[in-house]
Amino acid sequence: MATFDKILTAKAIHIGKLAAQATTAAGSGHPSTALSLATITAVLMYHVMRWDPADPANAGSDRLVLSEGHAVPIIYAACADLGVTIYPGAVGHTTAEKADGPGKRMTVDDLLTLRDIKSPIDGHPNPMMGFPFFDAATGSLGQGLSVAGGLGAAARVDKHNKVIYCIIGDGESREGQIWEAMDFIADQKLSNVVAIFNCNEIAQSDYVAAAQTADALQKKAEAFGWKAINVDGHDPTALVNALKQRTEAMVAGKPLCLIARTVKGWGAASQQGLGHHGHPIPEKDLASVLKELDATAEELGAAGISADESKKVLKIHPPLPAPAKPQAGKLITLAQAAEKAKLTDALVTKKKLSPRRAFGLALDALGDANPNVVGLDADVKNSTFAQDFAKDHPSHYFECRIAEQNMVSVAAGLASGHKIPFASTFGKFFSRAFDQIEMAIIGGSNIKLVGTHIGVTLAADGPSQMAITDVAILRAIGHATDHRGKPAITVLTPCDAVSAYAMVLAMAEWPSAVYLRALRADTGIVYGESETFEFGKFKVVKKGTGGGKGKKLTIATSGYLVHTVLKAAPKFEQAGIDLTLVDAYSLPFAADELLALAEGGPILTVEDNYTGGIGSEVAEAAAKTGKVKVDSLFIRNLPKSGKTPEDVLEFVHLGEADILAKAKSLVG
Amino acid sequence: MATFDKILTAKAIHIGKLAAQATTAAGSGHPSTALSLATITAVLMYHVMRWDPADPANAGSDRLVLSEGHAVPIIYAACADLGVTIYPGAVGHTTAEKADGPGKRMTVDDLLTLRDIKSPIDGHPNPMMGFPFFDAATGSLGQGLSVAGGLGAAARVDKHNKVIYCIIGDGESREGQIWEAMDFIADQKLSNVVAIFNCNEIAQSDYVAAAQTADALQKKAEAFGWKAINVDGHDPTALVNALKQRTEAMVAGKPLCLIARTVKGWGAASQQGLGHHGHPIPEKDLASVLKELDATAEELGAAGISADESKKVLKIHPPLPAPAKPQAGKLITLAQAAEKAKLTDALVTKKKLSPRRAFGLALDALGDANPNVVGLDADVKNSTFAQDFAKDHPSHYFECRIAEQNMVSVAAGLASGHKIPFASTFGKFFSRAFDQIEMAIIGGSNIKLVGTHIGVTLAADGPSQMAITDVAILRAIGHATDHRGKPAITVLTPCDAVSAYAMVLAMAEWPSAVYLRALRADTGIVYGESETFEFGKFKVVKKGTGGGKGKKLTIATSGYLVHTVLKAAPKFEQAGIDLTLVDAYSLPFAADELLALAEGGPILTVEDNYTGGIGSEVAEAAAKTGKVKVDSLFIRNLPKSGKTPEDVLEFVHLGEADILAKAKSLVG
Repeated sequence: MATFDKILTAKAIHIGKLAAQATTAAGSGHPSTALSLATITAVLMYHVMRWDPADPANAGSDRLVLSEGHAVPIIYAACADLGVTIYPGAVGHTTAEKADGPGKRMTVDDLLTLRDIKSPIDGHPNPMMGFPFFDAATGSLGQGLSVAGGLGAAARVDKHNKVIYCIIGDGESREGQIWEAMDFIADQKLSNVVAIFNCNEIAQSDYVAAAQTADALQKKAEAFGWKAINVDGHDPTALVNALKQRTEAMVAGKPLCLIARTVKGWGAASQQGLGHHGHPIPEKDLASVLKELDATAEELGAAGISADESKKVLKIHPPLPAPAKPQAGKLITLAQAAEKAKLTDALVTKKKLSPRRAFGLALDALGDANPNVVGLDADVKNSTFAQDFAKDHPSHYFECRIAEQNMVSVAAGLASGHKIPFASTFGKFFSRAFDQIEMAIIGGSNIKLVGTHIGVTLAADGPSQMAITDVAILRAIGHATDHRGKPAITVLTPCDAVSAYAMVLAMAEWPSAVYLRALRADTGIVYGESETFEFGKFKVVKKGTGGGKGKKLTIATSGYLVHTVLKAAPKFEQAGIDLTLVDAYSLPFAADELLALAEGGPILTVEDNYTGGIGSEVAEAAAKTGKVKVDSLFIRNLPKSGKTPEDVLEFVHLGEADILAKAKSLVG
Repeated sequence: MATFDKILTAKAIHIGKLAAQATTAAGSGHPSTALSLATITAVLMYHVMRWDPADPANAGSDRLVLSEGHAVPIIYAACADLGVTIYPGAVGHTTAEKADGPGKRMTVDDLLTLRDIKSPIDGHPNPMMGFPFFDAATGSLGQGLSVAGGLGAAARVDKHNKVIYCIIGDGESREGQIWEAMDFIADQKLSNVVAIFNCNEIAQSDYVAAAQTADALQKKAEAFGWKAINVDGHDPTALVNALKQRTEAMVAGKPLCLIARTVKGWGAASQQGLGHHGHPIPEKDLASVLKELDATAEELGAAGISADESKKVLKIHPPLPAPAKPQAGKLITLAQAAEKAKLTDALVTKKKLSPRRAFGLALDALGDANPNVVGLDADVKNSTFAQDFAKDHPSHYFECRIAEQNMVSVAAGLASGHKIPFASTFGKFFSRAFDQIEMAIIGGSNIKLVGTHIGVTLAADGPSQMAITDVAILRAIGHATDHRGKPAITVLTPCDAVSAYAMVLAMAEWPSAVYLRALRADTGIVYGESETFEFGKFKVVKKGTGGGKGKKLTIATSGYLVHTVLKAAPKFEQAGIDLTLVDAYSLPFAADELLALAEGGPILTVEDNYTGGIGSEVAEAAAKTGKVKVDSLFIRNLPKSGKTPEDVLEFVHLGEADILAKAKSLVG
């Protein structure tokens, strides 16, 4: 064995032993997977990557995304060995201030706190727990390569030469999202991304399928337009040489991937074969496993390397200079944006413009003013109107085609790469990426999502295209506080073009994740252009007249139904109801303030989605008082196609007559 | 052109014209996509498939899954031409009884009701709106091939020789789930499934990417282990011959796919090229487009075919005899199941067994007794304990590997194939398949999902593995009534092995979708073995003593936290609280009955998930009365790893002390 190989292998054994110790100390974790990655980790972190252990988040450094997050003990082990800076003060923080507390250089003692409630060394990679070496939370499998694609896309926008390495499990490569990412990276010619498939042949409950063997993965990668090199994942020189072929592949316009043949439980025969996945080594067996690893070092001629000798060979290359951070300029108004797009007639004269069209205008305006804003869409840019941005800012637009999971995780990567990513598609299609959205939030990625064609008012296309489950799940997550002290995600449903435009601009400034729901329909203009829309608040669209003129009722609704109720206002008056109409455009929102507004009178919530939105929000606040009456209308039967929004609203019992009848019964 | 080709092409033109007329009448839809499939549809529905237009759901017939659901007008057109039986009475039904109303033979008049609110001809395929030719609701792209895989798997269980055809868009094949399905079908050697890629080269907003051209798709399909034939999608004889190669491919152990080169807007040059996707032909242009289509027929020598001539050649082969419907036998008890699995010590002596272990026992017991029950798992069967079933019932078990989206849609297909599919994985990983779950529900598939390792009490693995968003979204859907008059999905969270076992057995009998959440932890036994657990109800685990002995408080919780509160019961007593503890194991549930139980006293809900579960359910019911005080504890900050459930519960402010403090403040 050449000196380089010996020293690298010795390091691999060393961090492998540390990983074994850490998981035994934790009483859980995946040492056998970690060992399969020992050599690859040593090659990347001690030799190939250009980075700074003292400043692991340095924006000029190469990045490593560990898609198979359960292998993380091997990375932690290397970090403990290298004294990577960690932030124990960030654990359990709820505000950005605390998260920025003092760092410390990681030690083996820190490593042995793996998975402890007070430790930044979480069970799976999570930068927000004080471990900024990582850019993304991983562990829910199949998502890392997309994140790496996003980091690569951000580097391209920055014209920066960093390289993003991504390690993927062979079993994990069964996830379709991996192949969405393979398509995306090849399509975008992001040759700054290198995928490494860890082919240890054993998944959790069985050997991998024939479809996930090294040979099969190589064929697939080639069919997906990648240069794929089949390499011994425990041969340092072979790995280094394979990685060097990135530049060659780049010339051919292909990204590079390594099909790295590895051994699960490498170096310790007792940990190999089936039945070891996710099992830490029992304390009583640890010493003998460590001996096995030492024996492997001996056998490979990698024993007895002095620290000096190791240091001489293993020099980590420093990061490249960090990319510049461009400043945002001044934004144009909606009127100006409409003029630019020749929509003044619709906006000013006809006073009808869809919120999705306003999103398109706002995104394009953001693109004009803020070089940090990037756009992504999933082949519906002519429906979401992300097309304006795509046309005007091609270097900042990433067409994701029909692959929403990849799009969301790419957005997460772009956010980690210091961009402000707006990802748009039909709201319905974000529902296949809820896991990806949650993982992005866990990892602290400041993503901006815009789901269009929401609600049953989409009408003609039917339920396969209607976003009606999104409100419940994202409001639920939004009631958790994220690492910045903000709602983990804010859900916005503007009812008109003015509010949509204003909210999209505000999204770019907001420090945390936001999901905006943009109606398909051309809706009337409700607000004056100077109106502002604070997240977490609501607007009073129509204030009751008070003074005993009818029975007091407050209706809280959003989106299309604001118009439905507004149009029906005279009928409420005829029915002797003194109506206050609230546009509850934000979730979560200050429901207490709504209770105050209602002054003890009944509240009716009306929603074009399944339950779990405004109705739950208001009922929860009201029930805390035990004094306010709240009733709710929402979708209570599975919808279908209809030719008009009204047809389908009636079908799901949300028509004007339904609302009026419920209102009467509530005040009566 | 040979006579066969002429007659088939004439039919293709005929149904193409009908599809154009239908979308124009609807004022929306996708005529250009429909035209690209005209020839393929004619070949399949008039010649290749063995089926009965009078009885389109016949269990002995070949099946067609239209994954690219927006192309459906061409299928509707063929059905109108063939007089396929439809059920207009099923539209808007909310009970199974109404759905079974009288059918009628579809006419062109019916076709022209496309997308109308009263029409069974929905915007995208939906069997539950009275159109049983289809087995699944499609339109949210990428899911159909998995459904076809499920139908193929069901046929294999039945030892039935039907063939399942699945049509996939080329743009759609960007969805990762397509490749999950390609892997699954190849792995399982389901050569009764035939995939047809409709390569018309145009997606919605642009041409398809290089990665989705016919050549690229062929290479990919081959790399995924399929026999892929590149064929002219408008050449009837070529299509028929290509489809005949299925038997040959089968011998080689490979499934067959066709890479069918088609023309978007086939037959009408004015509808070809970019910019026509999803645009119906304006009424004023319809006549000229129909003329274009007639001219194409002329040009291809397919004009002037008499009805007699056509009928003589286009004979539809009848269905095969339907498979037998095997009957279920008697189920063993939990005690018997535990004995069989050598778990009597845990269950009876130690009285500690995890709900996930009980799921494993129950699924195996179901497998012993009911030949209709099938199992699916995503490479975690040794964690979910689906492994008992997999081992004992290999012909009824389908290992799905790490690909959850495919698993859920395969389950939907199995349900459509008259099986009772139990799909299991970590609850967290179902969150990437929420769209698939919703589509299965829309399509009426009676799926049974079991998510294990739920809640932050999973502890050591951290948030990437914790199911805490599932409750909100699935409760929300569950508040909609499905076509059988049941909650569209019922969410169950058993707190012990007895209730878990009972609920899993009950799931198999329940007519609608169910999602059971099974704890990882070995929890104590709360219930006697004879206890029953009605869906939509709750259990009183501890009844307050009443009679003024302390301040009345009702706590509603579920899962792990039932034990937390139960254990703390003496502390509540010491604090002067007369505690009633409710196990709210089902969502939705009869919250009114809980209010009655509380007798006007305050209610505290406690949940190991984000908001949107029990707390919302009870608050909504309470707020309707405007009289009952309800406060709630749920996860309000992003969780992390911890070594014990208690560590993480404390981290998210759900520890015993938090509950006690909240209880005191609520009664104080």
